[in-house]
Amino acid sequence: MNIPQYVKQLFDQTSFLDSPVELYEPIQYTMHLGGKRLRPLLLLTAADMFGNDPTAAAPAAVAIETFHNFTLVHDDLMDHAALRRGQPAVHSKWNANTAILSGDTMFAIAWRHLLRLRADNLNDIMTAFSDTAVGVCEGQQLDMNFESRHDVTIEEYMEMIRLKTAVLLAGALKIGALCAHAPDDDTERLYQFGIHLGLAFQLQDDLLDAYGDTATFGKQTGQDIVDNKKTFLLLKALELASPSQTEELHRWFSDESRLSRDEKISGVIALYDRLDIRHHTQLQIERQFAAATDALRTIVLPDSKKEPLQQLAQCLLYRQS
Amino acid sequence: MNIPQYVKQLFDQTSFLDSPVELYEPIQYTMHLGGKRLRPLLLLTAADMFGNDPTAAAPAAVAIETFHNFTLVHDDLMDHAALRRGQPAVHSKWNANTAILSGDTMFAIAWRHLLRLRADNLNDIMTAFSDTAVGVCEGQQLDMNFESRHDVTIEEYMEMIRLKTAVLLAGALKIGALCAHAPDDDTERLYQFGIHLGLAFQLQDDLLDAYGDTATFGKQTGQDIVDNKKTFLLLKALELASPSQTEELHRWFSDESRLSRDEKISGVIALYDRLDIRHHTQLQIERQFAAATDALRTIVLPDSKKEPLQQLAQCLLYRQS
Repeated sequence: MNIPQYVKQLFDQTSFLDSPVELYEPIQYTMHLGGKRLRPLLLLTAADMFGNDPTAAAPAAVAIETFHNFTLVHDDLMDHAALRRGQPAVHSKWNANTAILSGDTMFAIAWRHLLRLRADNLNDIMTAFSDTAVGVCEGQQLDMNFESRHDVTIEEYMEMIRLKTAVLLAGALKIGALCAHAPDDDTERLYQFGIHLGLAFQLQDDLLDAYGDTATFGKQTGQDIVDNKKTFLLLKALELASPSQTEELHRWFSDESRLSRDEKISGVIALYDRLDIRHHTQLQIERQFAAATDALRTIVLPDSKKEPLQQLAQCLLYRQS
Repeated sequence: MNIPQYVKQLFDQTSFLDSPVELYEPIQYTMHLGGKRLRPLLLLTAADMFGNDPTAAAPAAVAIETFHNFTLVHDDLMDHAALRRGQPAVHSKWNANTAILSGDTMFAIAWRHLLRLRADNLNDIMTAFSDTAVGVCEGQQLDMNFESRHDVTIEEYMEMIRLKTAVLLAGALKIGALCAHAPDDDTERLYQFGIHLGLAFQLQDDLLDAYGDTATFGKQTGQDIVDNKKTFLLLKALELASPSQTEELHRWFSDESRLSRDEKISGVIALYDRLDIRHHTQLQIERQFAAATDALRTIVLPDSKKEPLQQLAQCLLYRQS
């Protein structure tokens, strides 16, 4: 089965409309904004890898994408992000209350989809799902905490992105494996593969924001810099900077600086270049990717079975957007 | 077993603290603000009625109360209600983002508690839980829709409070019955009992807001009138009013009226009195209570087993706060 094609069809065909329309229209809108459908892809590829018919695991794929989109709706509201995938975010198109309540409903609906699974290990699947959900919330809180902190370490940052991003990719893979009744050891290895892949994925995101090609990246680069976001790049720069460079960085990121957007971005990136931050980030990405590959290698299956997941990981890593 | 005492102990002993504290402290605060613990009481009383050890159903009781409190945290934010049980609401004590994210986390934690149940019919229990959750969200949306509508019928209002309030009480009872493996027919009857009880409960709430004794009610009366809330009382008044009384009602509730709080409340209540609204509301409460009692009567159990639930219902109905 061509899983990417199946995933596309699955979401094209799934309607989230119901009554009252004021509640469900924003859900339908959000669920059909598109996106990579990465988590369903991972989930169904994992299920397929262990011999499960991907159509049987489809409800779990819908559940995890609905959950992911719920977190985006609430995150955009909390971060005051006006756009999502180039379109107005729910709170800008409607209002804050709609974003809150439609988001809550998406979370409830995600469970409903999960419950459509006909699996005798539903308890394990639901436990993986609820642990994932709690982890993502904790990650978002850490991210919010970091906004007002000036002493965030790289170690803390990695723990934040583990929770905020990696746990959901790993959870998708684990749920796919559980749907296929994979052995416990292999399920755990797949989970670890997902964690390292997720970390590499988020670091790649940080890198693309600063060094991506605007045309292929699809959004303007440098937004993290403009937003004073603590990314791996910034934290690494602060780690490597000389006292005078540290001072320079603080000046670029100080609220008092009355610079234009472009001045700030090019100033920070020039400093990153002097500190070779791009290279340091790529090293860390490669380290995480290698750890992911190691975890995948130990799974007791013929290589040909692991090929699709290895390829998917590679695509994610070499993406330019 | 003394269930009210057990419920009190259960929540006194359950900690919701974890890391990061910025996320869990508001959850611990909310879960320990107190309240009647009505939904856990109903759930465990239902489980006990069908012969289940209430301690076995305790995780479901914690789950439903956590879910209920999650909805309160988000509702207070959406309604800009500064106080909850006489204490600052989460969004006033902390901020909007904390209320959103702590609320989301409470919803995820509720599932986690539910998953602690050792029940072979967990799928049915979880389906009841997710259906309840979706219903409550739909009810909240209808309530928000009503704010800007001037043609809400009593029938629509009853449907709104069925979803927003009654479905959760009925869901608590159903989950209790499912924990005890009650027969399907009886589980459905208990659900219907819960729906009618929930409707009576909400109408009683509407009535207390206008006619409750401030001292025993614990909050100032007339808040619904001040907030221009569409309650059963107002909708019934609009149904019975003569053309000139309708005009008078619209005048009291028009935004342009520059009346003091007390003038508005006493003016509206004087009109309610002329239309005998208190009596009409009490009639509807009694009708719902009778329907609840009928549903309870048809459950195939000796009367002595149904006594605690009948008593709990009676207490709810004759409460003054």
